[in-house]
Amino acid sequence: MSQRNPPLLAVPGFQWLGLNIGIKDDTLDFGVVASERECTAAAVFTRNNFPGAPVIVGRELIADGRLQAIAVVSKNANVATGARGLEHARSLSRWVGKQLGLPETLVLPSSTGVIGVLLPIERIEQGCRQIRENLGVDTQSLERFARAIMTTDRWPKWFCTRVGPATLVGVAKGAGMIEPNMATMLSYFVTDAQLPAERLDSLLRNAVNRSFNRISIDSDTSTSDTVALLANGLSGPVDEVEFAEALNEGCTFLAKEIVRNGEGVTKTLELTVSGADSQEMAVRIGRSILNSPLVKTAFHGGDPNWGRIVMAVGKVFEHPVSLDDLEIRVPTDSGTLRINNALVNAGTVDLDLLRTRLQADEVQLEILVGNGNHQETFWGCDLSQEFVAENAFYTT
Amino acid sequence: MSQRNPPLLAVPGFQWLGLNIGIKDDTLDFGVVASERECTAAAVFTRNNFPGAPVIVGRELIADGRLQAIAVVSKNANVATGARGLEHARSLSRWVGKQLGLPETLVLPSSTGVIGVLLPIERIEQGCRQIRENLGVDTQSLERFARAIMTTDRWPKWFCTRVGPATLVGVAKGAGMIEPNMATMLSYFVTDAQLPAERLDSLLRNAVNRSFNRISIDSDTSTSDTVALLANGLSGPVDEVEFAEALNEGCTFLAKEIVRNGEGVTKTLELTVSGADSQEMAVRIGRSILNSPLVKTAFHGGDPNWGRIVMAVGKVFEHPVSLDDLEIRVPTDSGTLRINNALVNAGTVDLDLLRTRLQADEVQLEILVGNGNHQETFWGCDLSQEFVAENAFYTT
Repeated sequence: MSQRNPPLLAVPGFQWLGLNIGIKDDTLDFGVVASERECTAAAVFTRNNFPGAPVIVGRELIADGRLQAIAVVSKNANVATGARGLEHARSLSRWVGKQLGLPETLVLPSSTGVIGVLLPIERIEQGCRQIRENLGVDTQSLERFARAIMTTDRWPKWFCTRVGPATLVGVAKGAGMIEPNMATMLSYFVTDAQLPAERLDSLLRNAVNRSFNRISIDSDTSTSDTVALLANGLSGPVDEVEFAEALNEGCTFLAKEIVRNGEGVTKTLELTVSGADSQEMAVRIGRSILNSPLVKTAFHGGDPNWGRIVMAVGKVFEHPVSLDDLEIRVPTDSGTLRINNALVNAGTVDLDLLRTRLQADEVQLEILVGNGNHQETFWGCDLSQEFVAENAFYTT
Repeated sequence: MSQRNPPLLAVPGFQWLGLNIGIKDDTLDFGVVASERECTAAAVFTRNNFPGAPVIVGRELIADGRLQAIAVVSKNANVATGARGLEHARSLSRWVGKQLGLPETLVLPSSTGVIGVLLPIERIEQGCRQIRENLGVDTQSLERFARAIMTTDRWPKWFCTRVGPATLVGVAKGAGMIEPNMATMLSYFVTDAQLPAERLDSLLRNAVNRSFNRISIDSDTSTSDTVALLANGLSGPVDEVEFAEALNEGCTFLAKEIVRNGEGVTKTLELTVSGADSQEMAVRIGRSILNSPLVKTAFHGGDPNWGRIVMAVGKVFEHPVSLDDLEIRVPTDSGTLRINNALVNAGTVDLDLLRTRLQADEVQLEILVGNGNHQETFWGCDLSQEFVAENAFYTT
């Protein structure tokens, strides 16, 4: 697995930085993106019942659909830190705002990293004094921002495209606590297109549902998930359909990159559940397969143990599937490999071909669960020994 | 981790065997237990929507509360095998019944192992011819039965006790696909006590709910789960309360042994969720913690990353907990170590003591989630690299 980032593009009116301010070690751990003028904005946050302090503050700030900057601290999530954590998140907005000459209500605070540890708040106050001299419109500054928001990510992740006269850039970090229920990650999109906040909100929610909410690395839902979109309008209005397509493409690209760059990930799975009676049924079955440790380990080994997929479909108690309707479909060079009840009874399932396909780095599977009209696509990964090693000793 | 089985006891009127009949390799793979007279009986099965053929047949057989023998094939689950699988399960009952001079309706078939592979049915027919010469009332035969039902279990598991004049023996296998929703395993209890079938049913369901339904190894729910209880009545009536206590003790002992002997398990966790508003809330939160890959890997490393427990409590979206109410309690030699919002804000959580406690082989945790009256205890384990290695190449 290695990065597939497109060439970087600068976005008119946006400046970036990535610094080390000593949160945990000497890696980049502080990122700021700021617009030269106020932006319309939208954001989507984690559903976890213990959202981090920055998420609590962010929900308040985004209510009026206006932002001008985002400040990200990595290596510490500022979660489960109570009243002091909230104070710290608000201080971050205030200090960054002061340096940029903005009210604190226009600066979205964001954090990712270990849970339950108070931020080293003096270092953040100190770090904020370096903002003005480090902000840059160049793509190197953008890349430093993308690196500064990383935790256990192996590579920075971005997406850049043109929408008519405008540019759209998205940056993301992922790696762990990734589940398809508001995927557990940070992602920030900025554009110089001009769009009202309420349209941004609806376009962003739609794009997130089809991308970040359809991935899973480890079935855990982070307390810090944030996707934000800022539009400074410098390039004027754009075709909204074209912008929606670009945003969908960007969210899907970054969602898949987050999976490819997940902790210990050696293989990726694109899973489509089709023939479901409802979206809910397709999502429940897709999540059950994608999150099953036994499916994920078999997939890691390239082991054609398709019975585990049957098990994972069957443990969605609320949505029973008839064994006669169930079919596992795997695209191959010579057509579609099928596994179903009739073939099993006839003893003619081609396990050797299945093994060959499952041993690829990127695998596609379709699971047909009935005659319904609903179909959903998900992206997941294997469960490797590296995942265990990486997660067994994270704080220490 | 090593076995803690009590000394074996024979049960009057019950004979046992364990044989190799060539299901997969040369290990024991066929077990039979048979009573000299008809028994009252009860059984509980998996909730998976694709139950194995033996489970489908078993549900029919147990309806009248009568059984006299159980025949177990291991290393092949006979699941997702359609009409032929059902035919094979019925043949197993018929052939064993024929050898024992019983109607097939008194022989419970049972299987565990790989999913989606037809049984080598001729070998089973051949194997059944060895039943009469191999059945024995002695404890060696019982032990061979306990070994014959194993798959990836590292040791055989049994429980033996006296209830007044009667004896109660339980045997279990576990290892993988173990989740607290009808724990994914096989367990058979036999007794010479005399109890009506409807009482056995209610006692067994009650005991299973508090034991096998409160464990988790990997969050996956098997398609073959079966717990059966046969009472041949040879020793006459017993005190029902005493019998219920013995059965509860046996189920709890075997459930915990299944966890200790789970695939790749190096450490066990006894988790109590207290202060919940409902049993449902306690169970949902307990399962979320016990099944979280990030909690399990941190636990594997003895890493005091308690924030992951907060995350796992918070991802039970339907049952929000106030951060002020949440407390993690760890018993230590010098009293209870507490982690809560006030201590985090004061910066006085004793992480070194927590690390020391978490590095033990057997860890106890209590999670207080509010002021409610409901409390539930669960047993789980770590997620190790051995688990991944073992499950990545299971069929091949």
